[in-house]
Formats: sequence, structure tokens, C-alpha cells
Amino acid sequence: MDQKIVKPSILPGFMELLPGDQILFNQMKDTIRKNYEKFGFLPIDTPAIEKSEVLLAKGGGETEKQIYKVVKGNTDMSLRFDLTVPLARYVAQYYSQLNFPFKRYHIGKVYRGERNQKGRFREFYQCDIDIIGNGELNIINDAEIPSVIYSTFKDLGFESFTIKINNRKVLKGFFQSLNIDDTTMVLRVVDKLDKIGIDKVKEELALLNIPEENIDRIIEFIKIDGNNDDKLDSLKKLNINNEVFLEGTDELEQVVKYIRVFGVPEENFMVDLTVARGLDYYTGTVYETLLDDYPGIGSVCSGGRYDDLATHYTKQNLPGVGISIGLTRLFYQLTEGNIIESNKNSSVDVMIIPMEGYMEYGIKLSNSLRDEGIATQVYFDDAKMGKKFNYVDKLNIPYAIVIGAEEIESGLYSFRDMKTGDQKSITLNEVVTCLK
Amino acid sequence: MDQKIVKPSILPGFMELLPGDQILFNQMKDTIRKNYEKFGFLPIDTPAIEKSEVLLAKGGGETEKQIYKVVKGNTDMSLRFDLTVPLARYVAQYYSQLNFPFKRYHIGKVYRGERNQKGRFREFYQCDIDIIGNGELNIINDAEIPSVIYSTFKDLGFESFTIKINNRKVLKGFFQSLNIDDTTMVLRVVDKLDKIGIDKVKEELALLNIPEENIDRIIEFIKIDGNNDDKLDSLKKLNINNEVFLEGTDELEQVVKYIRVFGVPEENFMVDLTVARGLDYYTGTVYETLLDDYPGIGSVCSGGRYDDLATHYTKQNLPGVGISIGLTRLFYQLTEGNIIESNKNSSVDVMIIPMEGYMEYGIKLSNSLRDEGIATQVYFDDAKMGKKFNYVDKLNIPYAIVIGAEEIESGLYSFRDMKTGDQKSITLNEVVTCLK
Repeated sequence: MDQKIVKPSILPGFMELLPGDQILFNQMKDTIRKNYEKFGFLPIDTPAIEKSEVLLAKGGGETEKQIYKVVKGNTDMSLRFDLTVPLARYVAQYYSQLNFPFKRYHIGKVYRGERNQKGRFREFYQCDIDIIGNGELNIINDAEIPSVIYSTFKDLGFESFTIKINNRKVLKGFFQSLNIDDTTMVLRVVDKLDKIGIDKVKEELALLNIPEENIDRIIEFIKIDGNNDDKLDSLKKLNINNEVFLEGTDELEQVVKYIRVFGVPEENFMVDLTVARGLDYYTGTVYETLLDDYPGIGSVCSGGRYDDLATHYTKQNLPGVGISIGLTRLFYQLTEGNIIESNKNSSVDVMIIPMEGYMEYGIKLSNSLRDEGIATQVYFDDAKMGKKFNYVDKLNIPYAIVIGAEEIESGLYSFRDMKTGDQKSITLNEVVTCLK
Repeated sequence: MDQKIVKPSILPGFMELLPGDQILFNQMKDTIRKNYEKFGFLPIDTPAIEKSEVLLAKGGGETEKQIYKVVKGNTDMSLRFDLTVPLARYVAQYYSQLNFPFKRYHIGKVYRGERNQKGRFREFYQCDIDIIGNGELNIINDAEIPSVIYSTFKDLGFESFTIKINNRKVLKGFFQSLNIDDTTMVLRVVDKLDKIGIDKVKEELALLNIPEENIDRIIEFIKIDGNNDDKLDSLKKLNINNEVFLEGTDELEQVVKYIRVFGVPEENFMVDLTVARGLDYYTGTVYETLLDDYPGIGSVCSGGRYDDLATHYTKQNLPGVGISIGLTRLFYQLTEGNIIESNKNSSVDVMIIPMEGYMEYGIKLSNSLRDEGIATQVYFDDAKMGKKFNYVDKLNIPYAIVIGAEEIESGLYSFRDMKTGDQKSITLNEVVTCLK
């Protein structure tokens, strides 16, 4: 039968990995999950397809343009574009069955029809945690979040990273004290400081009709420097008698105090008064995380505190605080930049290679090793020895055991270290000890 | 601001769990993955959205009717409806970069717009393994698959289950020997034996214009009984001199022989000559797995051998063998039937409840416990003691530690077993020992 061949390919903007990289990716995902669980976050898993009216309840903006519609029958459905909207819907829907504070983690794929460009993905994993309170949520929760970030990135193998902390009330109150009404526009300019530099910020502020003396005060403010305590002191010395500002300063001080109690080292977090983040969503503490040696990557973990999670789905007041790791993008940047590299193409610990006629012995050995929790593969197919060892090599399986007449007679297994080429004859118990 | 409230709800036919059930679901998923990895299967993770021409290369049938189209721009895209088509595309696409035999596992969501009915889901997890050979694949691989099923279901906590084994060549050859050309139609009838009973099978065979003597031979064949060796003997004694039949019998014999070598107990597998499965896809060994105590659930893990995986995407000959666990449906049936039940609403090992003024001590204790790998939560919010303990109870967290003046002075922690209510004052080391 002559078949029509369709060229095997995937859509542009989607990530797909070879098994070696996939193992590495999964290890990172597992590490993130393990850390989230260690702090008491509970898993949820929502459908990737939801009603469009639910996903777009907030309405308008970039989101609606990037959304993937799903078509089947007459229901208006879409693929989720983040994990926050589904969380809001979930908490509102199961409100009476959840226990507050509700600490949830969610690791899943989201979909955005972004313009196709290098390093941007249309399907990507988000790894989110949020703590949702019922009516109120203690500020200590805002300090726990950085300790989860710290624990997670440490466990991911990063040595130097900085969690930047700010509080949007500090910014908001400060601008109110300057009688700047359109805080949002000013924050948007200030937020670009890292990208466009101080002179351009001044220019753009002038374009917003801010008097020069106030621009100077803004610059003075965003240039506040020193260690974390210095910055908090400088904030207080500004002598700004604005309620929002004072509340923000107090919260920031509390968060810094408790971050220390959580044991996050001083070098891994930093008050940064220029961090503003998602302007219409966050209302208090905000976070960004930078890899010190790779600042170009930008923030690898961001988030903050919000007054009310689910205004579009319930009248319950649900304040929360959370962060998200965009794992797909992070993984892409780490591998593209050769910052991490897959060092194995298999999670198998040992390959058993039976000589002709010794397959049964080989399989039985594999049973024993798996019973000990050792990931074991047996080479079943007929092939020359060289081809078999080549397979083991290509999969980076660290050890191989050859079984033939000699091994069965002596009861000793030829145990080969594939890296060094060293081979020794050892008992089953010794094999198990070596592999464990 | 008065907000319009959208009723929080999900689409019909989608599964969404509360955290307690989600923990249980994830445990099952983890167990399946761990077992797949123990046998050397490598992870892959393909996009949920693919080009429609790729997904529908095989074309036609039920699949096309159930597919979810994805709309964004002009590309014809769809959601994957299984993990086998993406595997075929993947192996064809990365053929030169993969090592054969290629053992892959894939645990992911697939989408089918099925008619809405109880226990059927439109988004569900499949947990697949396949072993793909390059041109050839040893029959021992067909025997390893049941040993993975055995290991997995044992580990999932099932005691009594039966992996049914057959070989489609046995069926095909047998029917050829009766000069029945339209084997497919006959197999379809035979496949319904369990559902419609022997009389109805006879009736339907007669409708296919099969002579009565041949119907008798078919009935004689599918009634072959006894233990596995008896059945293999009976097959040989049929004295059918058909090449396909003899090849199938030989393969079946080999598979049974090696399943035993793999250590699968006799009570957990069974040659069943009536198992036919996916009629146009499988070409050799076929599997079904039944929970002995819950036969109504049907097969919980099925699959088989196929001659060529990726005919639609490559001219390479890629024989393979694999199985799939439909985890979402299985989970639904197990929980609906009260066969399994969530016994925890949190994966936290211990909750720390600081008395007023002792928050810092509580947090520091949580740091120490997490350093020991113990999942720990601290109760941050202000609330009465009763409310705090109620929270611990509702989350089924097994232990609680209250910290106040007394505890700090004595250096002993009040460690409460939430189930029994027993409380004892012990040192940090003793707490760690208790929790580990």
C-alpha cells in the first residue's frame, strides 16, 4: 500500500525536547514541586479548556488578543492563558469546601498566541504558588514567599540570585504625596528604569507634566541606596506624611524582618524601591528574582500581594500573595546560554547485556535490581557487542553488566563503569551497593 | 466599583478535583511514572496543540468527529486526542537523534469531544509506554510490557488483577484456516463475547454467512480453557497448518515463557484467546488488564504490538509494543466506587502553631524541620486556638506543635498527635525522629 507521507513537524513557537533535555526539564519541575510541597502548598489541576466568559471575565487588553479559541459544537471555549484566572475561578467555585488560608500550587501548561520570536513560547509551563486568605491575610505570608523562592532556587542549583522586594503602597503613597494623580503612568515610567536609564526616565516624566522639583524628588527616591536597613531608614527620613506610604513602609519593614527569620541570607534578597510590576493587579508587596550572573535573563520568578483575587467570580473578599516561575522560558534560557546542560539521556542506572543463551539470567538479575529500586534495562535484541555498548554509551547509562557462562559459573557479575571503562567481577550484593 | 459577577464553573465533561483528591490522583500518577522509569522508559512531552494535518494524517473515522479545533490566525490546528499519534510524529521527526530500541513514556492530557456521559471525560490523562524498534523488535519486549503492568498495579496497591494476553496472529491465522476473508468483521464479533454472550456471538456470526461447521470451530476455539499451558497445548492440538497461526502461537508461547522469567505470578496473567482489541492497529501480542474484584470497570490498561508505528510520517519501518493507562477514567471509577479514598487533604507533616509573641520561634522551628525534609506549615494568622486546631484537623495534618513561653523556657516542644489527641513534650531531635 502506498501511503501519503505527511512531513513530521510541530507548530512554530512550541517547545519540544529530546529525552535527555526532557529528563533535565522534569528534574527542575520535580525540584520546584518538592519545594512547594515542603511549605505546605496543595496541588490543584484545572482544565486547560475553560468557558471563554470565565477566562475573559476581566475583559479586554492584550490577553484577549493572545487567546486560543477552541472549537467544537457551539460552546465558546478557550485555552487558559495563565494559572491565576483559573485559581480565582476555582477558589470562588469551591469556596465553601476549601480551608483558608488556602495554600495552593499549580504546575501546568498555559497558552498564548504571542508573536513568534526566539525564546517566546505559545505553550509554556507556569509553576505558581499562592496563599489566599478569607477576608484577611497576615503580612508574614508575604515574607514566606521569598523563603520558598530561596529554597527552590537553591535546590535548583543556583548559588547567586537576588530576590528583589518592594511594596506598591510605598510607591503609591510617595506619588500621592507629590500630588501626582496618574500614579499608574508614573509607575510605568519608573518601572522602565533598568531598561532605559535615569535620563530617559527624567525625560518621560517631564512629558507627563511633572514639575521639575517633583521629578527631582522622584529621582532622589528611586536612587535611595545602601543595604536593606539603610533603605528602610532612608524611606522613613523622607518624612512623608501619607497614610498609604506609611502603611507600605511598615509592611516592607515587617516583610524584611520576617524574611530574615525565615533564614534567607542577606545576600539573596534586596529591597528595591524601583520594582513596581503588574500595575493594575498587585497592591502591596512585589517580588522579582534575578540570577546575579545572568542579569540579561530578567526576572525568573515574580509576583506579589493582591487585595482581592476573585472579584469577577464572587463577592467574597479574598486577599492573596503569590509568585510564578515561567519554567519553559527559564529552561530555554538556561540551556541556550549553556548555563545548564543535560548530562544524561536516560534515567537508567544500569544496563544488563546477556550473552547469547543467557537472557533468562539477565532478566532475573534485572528483577532483583528493580526490587532494590534500581532502574534497570536489559538489552533484548540480537546485535553485536559493539552495537550494544554503543547504545549504553549513547544513553549515558553509567554502568553495564555482561552476563554469560563465566558469570553464571562463578556467581560474579562483570560490572563495568562506562565512564572509566573499569570492569570488576563482583557479587549481586556488591552490585546493589555500588548502584545505590 | 460594582463588578459584574460571572458564575464560576467549568465545562461539562471535564474533571476537576479538590486538593485532597488531587493529592491522591498525583500519588497514582507518581507511582505510574516511577515504575515506568524503573524499566528504563524515557520521558517525552509533546505540545497539546499540533497541526491538524499531522494529527489527522491517518484520516477519517470517529477521531475526526471528536477532535477539538484550535483557532488563532490561519493555521489549521487541533488538540491531540491520544499520545500515540504524537509519538509516531516524534519518532519520525527525530529519528536520527533517537537511540533504538526507543523506550519512551508519556504522561499527559489528551482531548476528545465525546458525547457527555457519566465517567467519560473530554480532557483526560493518558499514561503510555511504548518500545519502538528500528526495523525489528525482539518478542521479549512483548513480555516485558506485562511485567511493567504488574509492577505498576502492584505498586498502586491492587492485589488481584489479571493481565490478559493474546496474539492477533493466532486469531488471524485461525480465521484464515477457515477461509474467512473478512477477519476484521469476525474479530469484531468475537471481541464482543464478554459483552453479549456466546449465543449472540453465534447469531452474529451466522449473519456474516459463516457455515455452521465453521461457527462450531470458532466456538470450540474461543472456548479453549484451562491454565496458560493447557491453552497453549490446546492451540497446538488444533493442528492448524497456517503460517500466521503458527507464528502467533509461537510468539504467544514465547511471551508466556518470558512473562514468567520476569517474575509475574501465574495468578496475575492469563492467556485469553478472545481478546482482540483495536482491530486495525495491533498486529501481534495484545493486552488487557482487569481488576478481578471490579470486572465492571473493564480494562484499566490495554495495548499491544504493532508492525509499524509511523507509516504516515516516514518510510522507516518502526515496529513497536506499548500500553496505556487511562488515569482520569480509572481514578473516577475507583473513587466513585469507593475503592480508593483520599485520606489526606494536605501533604504537610506537621503544623506549627505559635502562641502570641512566639511567631519567630515558630518560624525558626519550621526552618529546622524543612531542612530535615519535613513538610511543615506555620499558622501565621491571628485566630482563636480552636480555629487553628480546626484548620489542622480539616487538612488532616497528622501532627501539631504549639510554641509558647513554656516551650521556649524548657526547650521541649508540645507535640500533638492530631488523630489520638496524645500530646507529649519532646526535644527537637525527638520531633524530627517522630516525623521521619
